[in-house]
Amino acid sequence: MSASAERKLLDLGLTLPTAPRPLGAYVEAVQTGQLLFLSGALPVHEGVVHYVGRIGNELTVDEGREATRLAVLNALALAREHLGSLDRVIRVVTLRVWLSTGTEFRDHPRVADAGSELLADIFGMERISTRMVAGVSSLPVGASAVVELVLAINT
Amino acid sequence: MSASAERKLLDLGLTLPTAPRPLGAYVEAVQTGQLLFLSGALPVHEGVVHYVGRIGNELTVDEGREATRLAVLNALALAREHLGSLDRVIRVVTLRVWLSTGTEFRDHPRVADAGSELLADIFGMERISTRMVAGVSSLPVGASAVVELVLAINT
Amino acid sequence: MSASAERKLLDLGLTLPTAPRPLGAYVEAVQTGQLLFLSGALPVHEGVVHYVGRIGNELTVDEGREATRLAVLNALALAREHLGSLDRVIRVVTLRVWLSTGTEFRDHPRVADAGSELLADIFGMERISTRMVAGVSSLPVGASAVVELVLAINT
Repeated sequence: MSASAERKLLDLGLTLPTAPRPLGAYVEAVQTGQLLFLSGALPVHEGVVHYVGRIGNELTVDEGREATRLAVLNALALAREHLGSLDRVIRVVTLRVWLSTGTEFRDHPRVADAGSELLADIFGMERISTRMVAGVSSLPVGASAVVELVLAINT
Repeated sequence: MSASAERKLLDLGLTLPTAPRPLGAYVEAVQTGQLLFLSGALPVHEGVVHYVGRIGNELTVDEGREATRLAVLNALALAREHLGSLDRVIRVVTLRVWLSTGTEFRDHPRVADAGSELLADIFGMERISTRMVAGVSSLPVGASAVVELVLAINT
Repeated sequence: MSASAERKLLDLGLTLPTAPRPLGAYVEAVQTGQLLFLSGALPVHEGVVHYVGRIGNELTVDEGREATRLAVLNALALAREHLGSLDRVIRVVTLRVWLSTGTEFRDHPRVADAGSELLADIFGMERISTRMVAGVSSLPVGASAVVELVLAINT
């Protein structure tokens, strides 16, 4: 049986940010059957986007990692708001990481790993996800990272 | 109970375009269980791609909004062709909006909202979707916007 | 009834590459219900990424097609590793193709078709997928193409 994700958050000393509000006419989570789809989550803290710029240009790989980690925390805040508790998560199905980069950037796996490692810490290796990461031209409000999560949940 | 999406289209005076044909060896819709996945839809009208260029460079934000709206109408035309009627849509699960932009573009939410608002008008606020939007380097045949929809449907 | 995909691979003289190992803290496949989600697959052969560069700049359209085809073969290797046999695939649900391109590139459908045509050859036209293709700024380790597959499978 899987350990409690909520307990793991406490053990790690992590507090989820306030769940972000949508930036338009959409919702942050839609459940269909056993799948929970989440909107793209940004590296936001208290309503402010952090780590603005392109990773590999204005931002270092380590700053990109921090941005990705913060975006994942925001996605988990959305999930908890919808589910009541992260302990209802059976599996993280997909993690998609979209990074703002120039054309020469190569270190996507190292940046995305900051998100994957956080998910592994919270949900355990037995519940880690598939992954997709790519560098894009621009992201909403200048963010350097946006993450998309799909979760399998207890209904 | 949800209002009829087909009735709403009529009330709004909207006519869906002819469903686009695939640009290659794929299909426009695949249903699996209660989910309907649609191929990326372009801002096409009568076989011609409109709003070619990058939003924020050759195109304004308002032109980007028109492109996104037209792409969503094309996606709905695909959905209706597959389903027979949009009244079988239980929920719009995800709307992904890919925009052709330069590196300085920031107004993705405003552009993507043209698609989200149209979906809210047709399906009602109780059926609106999650959302992901990003700016990419290039899109098929020079399009400024491509949208991907996933729908939950009555089987 | 669908023809055997494994038999078709033999008939086509195709050998799948060794399934790639994850480049970080994620897994290559997650099954939930009847859906199998695969991580982004690169054009890798024997541990080496081929076709590095941007399609339309350093690489031709034909090289982009080869990259896409090789990436799809890697995705299928992942699927077979998870499933035991590709004969368990009921349907290819989505094929997403992310290409490294400059801003002027237009021939995405022709490049992505190399992947779609391969899937049609193996699984038959009755099991082909929806598709999404876009050009991005950069991809992991400099790859020119990454593909994401979602499959519907016999459980």
